[in-house]
Amino acid sequence: MTTAETTYGLASQLVGAGLTGADLDAEVLRSDHDNVFHSWSAQNHLPDSVIAGGEGARLWNHAGDQFLDFTSQLVNVNIGYQHPAVVEAIREQASQLTTIAPATANRTRATAARKILDHVPDTFSKVFFTNAGADANENAMRLARQVTGRDKIISRYRSYHGNTGSAVVATGDWRRIPNEFARGHVHVFGPYLYRSEFYAQTEAEECERSLRHLEHVILAEGVDTVAAVLLETVPGTAGIMVPPPGYLAGVREICDHHGIIMICDEVMAGFGRTGSWFAFQQHGVVPDLVTFAKGVNSGYVPAGGVIISDAVARHFDETVFPGGLTYSGHPLAMAAIVATVTAMEEEGIVDNAATVGSEVIGPRLTALTEDPVTSPVVGEVRGSGVFWAVELVADRDTREPLPAERMSAIRRRCLEQGLLVTVAGNRIHVVPPCIITAEEAEQGLDILVAAIAAEAGEDN
Amino acid sequence: MTTAETTYGLASQLVGAGLTGADLDAEVLRSDHDNVFHSWSAQNHLPDSVIAGGEGARLWNHAGDQFLDFTSQLVNVNIGYQHPAVVEAIREQASQLTTIAPATANRTRATAARKILDHVPDTFSKVFFTNAGADANENAMRLARQVTGRDKIISRYRSYHGNTGSAVVATGDWRRIPNEFARGHVHVFGPYLYRSEFYAQTEAEECERSLRHLEHVILAEGVDTVAAVLLETVPGTAGIMVPPPGYLAGVREICDHHGIIMICDEVMAGFGRTGSWFAFQQHGVVPDLVTFAKGVNSGYVPAGGVIISDAVARHFDETVFPGGLTYSGHPLAMAAIVATVTAMEEEGIVDNAATVGSEVIGPRLTALTEDPVTSPVVGEVRGSGVFWAVELVADRDTREPLPAERMSAIRRRCLEQGLLVTVAGNRIHVVPPCIITAEEAEQGLDILVAAIAAEAGEDN
Repeated sequence: MTTAETTYGLASQLVGAGLTGADLDAEVLRSDHDNVFHSWSAQNHLPDSVIAGGEGARLWNHAGDQFLDFTSQLVNVNIGYQHPAVVEAIREQASQLTTIAPATANRTRATAARKILDHVPDTFSKVFFTNAGADANENAMRLARQVTGRDKIISRYRSYHGNTGSAVVATGDWRRIPNEFARGHVHVFGPYLYRSEFYAQTEAEECERSLRHLEHVILAEGVDTVAAVLLETVPGTAGIMVPPPGYLAGVREICDHHGIIMICDEVMAGFGRTGSWFAFQQHGVVPDLVTFAKGVNSGYVPAGGVIISDAVARHFDETVFPGGLTYSGHPLAMAAIVATVTAMEEEGIVDNAATVGSEVIGPRLTALTEDPVTSPVVGEVRGSGVFWAVELVADRDTREPLPAERMSAIRRRCLEQGLLVTVAGNRIHVVPPCIITAEEAEQGLDILVAAIAAEAGEDN
Repeated sequence: MTTAETTYGLASQLVGAGLTGADLDAEVLRSDHDNVFHSWSAQNHLPDSVIAGGEGARLWNHAGDQFLDFTSQLVNVNIGYQHPAVVEAIREQASQLTTIAPATANRTRATAARKILDHVPDTFSKVFFTNAGADANENAMRLARQVTGRDKIISRYRSYHGNTGSAVVATGDWRRIPNEFARGHVHVFGPYLYRSEFYAQTEAEECERSLRHLEHVILAEGVDTVAAVLLETVPGTAGIMVPPPGYLAGVREICDHHGIIMICDEVMAGFGRTGSWFAFQQHGVVPDLVTFAKGVNSGYVPAGGVIISDAVARHFDETVFPGGLTYSGHPLAMAAIVATVTAMEEEGIVDNAATVGSEVIGPRLTALTEDPVTSPVVGEVRGSGVFWAVELVADRDTREPLPAERMSAIRRRCLEQGLLVTVAGNRIHVVPPCIITAEEAEQGLDILVAAIAAEAGEDN
């Protein structure tokens, strides 16, 4: 019944056949709102933009309106849209073998694991593939619990680790609260000098006190009950708080001392975002497990996973690992990983992120804190690579966050000028694709700076 | 830096460059075992097969050895391998737009939702897309808890619902036990006359008693604490126990009476497997939520989701749904869904599954229970469509399961003859792609029947 002659073209099946331009955008919106249930939303209040295509750091709708992207969608499109080599790898793999179960060895999967292991210290020996970041963290926690025989996972209040049962409870932000159906999770505060939980005055003090806090919680919970410390190497959605020098090394030391597994969640920070392959590499530490997704293949095909130290992997040589999933190591996702990592290597994409960050984004955002027009609303600027937060305040002395409607106004001004930015609480996250050029970064920053300046001007 | 000229071909990056045939298979296996951490396995005891390609119901390795597939991998490849229309749709979408965030409307995503809704009763109004079956069930449980304001999920001991935090604890089988870190889960026994928990002698008695058991557990747990009853419409990995007439209608009635959400997990049973689009349609009931994955696009691109009744969807018109994920409604997965559902419609794939099941697989497997050679080891045969279980026993009177090593011997005999079968406990699951022809089914059954007969002969 299935023959090569019997094909039903995708284009002829899609909604809005015969329409073009703005009419097609309107029809897609209507059909989307009618049929699709959306993430983290009230369904009567959905965004009203349609994206039809993209290239590099730019996107467009069916009407042809173009947008420069400072969001990388959900901070995942590190190599930009429609990288030709990655698109071609997906097309090639699709023609050869779209899917195969994880229990079967597959050439593309083995290669993808090898390519990832090429970029981490050789204390790591294997990769377990998942569908995304949430189940990467689920399986990292599972590995830690199995290896240690302990229950508790310590994570941070300012964090996001995914939407599934345990990952969402490891999460610290509001999304945990309606979903608190897992046990064995304890939360601590991490270093964040601008809004210090520890009454610290200096970065060194914040670092020392947050480490002492972590140690105290571990002792109070009972050392023998703690399986893992799970932390985003650089907390992402929570505010891009680059850890102070010595913090991660201190966590490593505490974990070593108590036999606790250290898990770095690099779902957002990994694969070039901070200007290095992994963020932990900027801090002189080596965790036991690293979780990844997003940047590993820029989300071209859903994929995530856990990079596993040899010591942890060896535990399961003769012991069954009690976790798994149908699409673990899915060939299309693996093809996209092989091509993405190769493109990042060949094109110097990680270095580009570092350079654009240190030469363009960092200096221009930091200048906002001194500029007489913008400085009244700019509380702090922090980040590295293409991973920056601008924290906006109604009052620089009290550090009171800029209210939501004023944050929305800034986003709206940017959108009107063709720039997509991410608003998270009272922060603008400047997180363009790692391939963004200095010129594109300057163009986007011109728009963003003007939007912040206009909003600052509203005070006068 | 990214230009159309700069492409790095996938083939040149893969392990085993320059090797062919059996040498390449050996190199892929070596690289896989070195670098890939595998699902549900002790890592020193991995399967030793490599799959390089496939078409229809057949697969092959790099050496060119061919296999007829009675497994559909993990019961997901309903339309068979490399369906040309679906491969082409993935290639087409890849060239246009590989990825876009869920908050943005997208034409392919809206179409995929519409295509799915075309095949369910119109009490359903929206689709929430996830990455796979586990997070489909996670989000269905979340919807039920949010809508009812209650905590507990009742599921069955003989079930599998996925590997993430809550899904794995909703699961009934051994995989739950090392992963019991979620709260709010209660398990019941479902109908399974061959190994009745209720001392029943007839199907009607088993049905009535299992419903009474469910009702008693709900009352004992407290009606006001139960958010949902979550059940695989036909339990899959647990043994393909087709529910007796009236069971699902009875569950529906109990749920209605107590204000409980009824969730049918159709991750394995859905999209043609049982010989209808969804298994619940064979039982005259309509659940509130249906979870899906696997067959929706045959796993060509990772995807899953929840089909949501209008009543449940409306609850979130003005209330934020506290769940979501980066790849919800991923364009490549959506393109594969649109093309798969279209191909199933156009090619009569669901009808084919029903016909091959009722005319070939069902009669031939059922005959094993009467055949003087095989009947001593064949305890029960059950199923519909291309979803069948043969329960093998060491003793027909005591119903003692055939031991693992004898089950392995049957699988090995099949493999030697080029047939892939799934062994689950003491059962052979006969679950070929829905597109299998009557001739292919006969060929595979010849091999399987001979393998069972040979094993039965070992008793003499």
